[in-house]
Order: sequence, then structure tokens, then C-alpha cells
Amino acid sequence: MAQLLKVQNFCVSRDGYGAGEGQSLERPFGHADPAGFMSWAGATASWPNRTDPGGSRGLDDYFTRDFSHNIGAEIMGRNKFSPLRGPWQDHEWLGWWGDEPPFHTPVFVLTHYERPTFSLGDTTFHFVNREPADALALAREAAQGKDVRLGGGATTIREFLDADLVDTLHVAVVDIELGGGVRLWESTEELTDRYHLDVVPSPSGVTHHIFWRK
Amino acid sequence: MAQLLKVQNFCVSRDGYGAGEGQSLERPFGHADPAGFMSWAGATASWPNRTDPGGSRGLDDYFTRDFSHNIGAEIMGRNKFSPLRGPWQDHEWLGWWGDEPPFHTPVFVLTHYERPTFSLGDTTFHFVNREPADALALAREAAQGKDVRLGGGATTIREFLDADLVDTLHVAVVDIELGGGVRLWESTEELTDRYHLDVVPSPSGVTHHIFWRK
Repeated sequence: MAQLLKVQNFCVSRDGYGAGEGQSLERPFGHADPAGFMSWAGATASWPNRTDPGGSRGLDDYFTRDFSHNIGAEIMGRNKFSPLRGPWQDHEWLGWWGDEPPFHTPVFVLTHYERPTFSLGDTTFHFVNREPADALALAREAAQGKDVRLGGGATTIREFLDADLVDTLHVAVVDIELGGGVRLWESTEELTDRYHLDVVPSPSGVTHHIFWRK
Repeated sequence: MAQLLKVQNFCVSRDGYGAGEGQSLERPFGHADPAGFMSWAGATASWPNRTDPGGSRGLDDYFTRDFSHNIGAEIMGRNKFSPLRGPWQDHEWLGWWGDEPPFHTPVFVLTHYERPTFSLGDTTFHFVNREPADALALAREAAQGKDVRLGGGATTIREFLDADLVDTLHVAVVDIELGGGVRLWESTEELTDRYHLDVVPSPSGVTHHIFWRK
């Protein structure tokens, strides 16, 4: 079985933005409201950051439940890992996710700036200055036969799509308009020449878009 | 985390039947065409019985992919296990699933007729003459903290629903009319007093019904 490269539970606005303008420590999604982006996922029983036993087990839960299914490594852009830009001033920033990041695998952070590997919980962050295909080769080896998740942000996903490396792509389109920010697409039609597409409206108000290779 | 009892990928006709009339070795679904019932699942990449590497990875694949997620045991009715009725004539019948049944866990077959436990691949079949709650207690213990799948058929699912033991229920309603057979429900409204319900039409033509406890 081939090792797939999968995008899971990536959220974009109706007008195609994965984050707003002006991302910062205080505003990780820029001018976009993170609650508006992620509330559909946070409401599910299988949301990795859930701390109480409740949550819905309907359609949306199939998507959050699938998050770690057969995943052996993640690749993410540096701007997902950190609100900082440019060279690392120090190594104090350890990500947004507290002491137990929800990845539980090796994670490869794409960055032009060197930084030592570190582990937090059972997640290990590696910092690599590689082209998409080379980063994917590293992640596949680390995944030991399992699939690789491409975690975002939008710019990183776009680069891997442009290099034709993505096998499956799940995007939750949330019903908000941003007007600007970090764009994933102008239109889903940019992808339908290469991918099948199921469009599935959820009772929660998001519309799941599931792409897989033709 | 509680151990859930889950029904997964159970198929019924538009008029609520899980199998037709006259089930037999030659006609495991009675007068219903098994291809009509299961083709949506068989078309997916994650269908457990798939032998070639193809298959769709859209909405339907989330359901087949979820089949063994955190499942530690299955409970099934005797009429799912075997086309035979009444006392076992011999122990030659080993199920419908060949040398590698897709369960890979202990399976508890509900039957009034004793039969020794046997293993096939990494599935072990136990034959138990128990009420639903007692059978569930056995399966939970065997599942070692994982969830338990309730595999069907319709009569068995109905018994567990009537005993209020089912936590989540996924039913794929296929677009055929049977007119008679083994009934799961007259209407989904029989369950919506106790369960939330997401109704999700799939591009494949089936309509996924996802119930979870209120």
C-alpha cells in the first residue's frame, strides 16, 4: 500500500482563505476569528484537544476521528508552528499546543532557519530547509510505512499541490467571508482536473470538500 | 472514556429492511440483491475485503475506513454468521468470510445452540446464549477498553436498541425498495426521541444516517 500524503480538517473561509491578515502571537489566524474557523471541529467528541467527555458523534466527528488514523508523520509550514518570522531569536517557542501536542509522531517544520530537533510529549519536531518533494521523502521514511499528514498552512498546502504531491485533501469550508489573508484557492475548480471531489454540507454549517486523485 | 457500542455501515432498503425474505446459503440477503446493498461500500478504498489497490476516497470511504477504529470486539446475531437455522448439524460452517475474516477481534455470536469457540486468522468466534446486556458485558471485557461493534443483522440491532444499549448507529439507506424481509425500522422517527440524527446524502446514491445518544 502506498504511503499517502493527506490534508485533513483544513479550514478555509467561503472566499478561500486559510488565515486572515496580520497573523501574530495574539491573533494566530490574523484578523480571522479562530473560533469561527474551528468551532465545528471543537464541537465533536473526537477533537484531539477535547478535555471533557461530551461532544457530537455525527458527520463532523468522522473527520476529527480520522485525524490520526494510520498517520506516521506530519509536515507543516513554519507559519503554522510559530507566529515568529525570520531567524529564530531563541528556542523558547515550542509551538501552540502546550505540553502534549496532538500529533504524537515526528513533525517536520519547513523553515529556512536552522533549529535543533526537540521533543514534547510523544511529538518530535524537526526543522528542515527542504523543497516539498525532499521533505516528503524525509517524512515518509519517518512514518515507517504509514501515511503522512500535511498540516498546513494554506501556503504550504498550495506548494505541495503545485508540486503534485498531495493524494487526498479534506477542506472544511466555513461560512464566513474574510476578504483577504493567506489564500488556499480562488475556486475548487483549480483542482478538479486532477482530483475527484465530493462536496458534503454538514448540519453544523460547514461544507466538507473531499478531494482524491483521479 | 466509556466503551461505546457502535453499529457501523449497516445497510437497509428505503423501506427499512436489512435483508430480504428467504435468506439461504445461495441468497444470504434473501430476495434482496447483496450487490445493491453493499456496492457503495465495496467501491471505497478502505473496504475490508478489497483485493486491488483502487477505490474511492470520498465521503463513503470515511465510513468504511472507520470500521475497525478503536474496535475491540464484535457482537453479531447467529443469522449474520450463518444461513443455517436451528441446532448445528456439524461444525463445518466457519462463516461467510473465508480464511481471513475482516473482524480481527473476538466475535460473540448470539445463538441458542452451543458450539465450541474457534479461531480463523486473527478472529475468534465465541457462541453465546445470552441476553443483550450480558452479551455486551462479555464483549466489553474481551475488548479490553476499546469499543464494541454491533454487527447485525436487523433483528439483533433492534433487540439492542430496545434494550437501550446502542451508543452510536450508522445506517446507510440504499435506494432500493424490498417490500418485505427483516426489518430494522418503519421510520427513523422511532429513534429520534433518544438519539441525535445527521442525515447525509452521499454522491454515491446512499443516504448515511448517523445517530448518537442525546
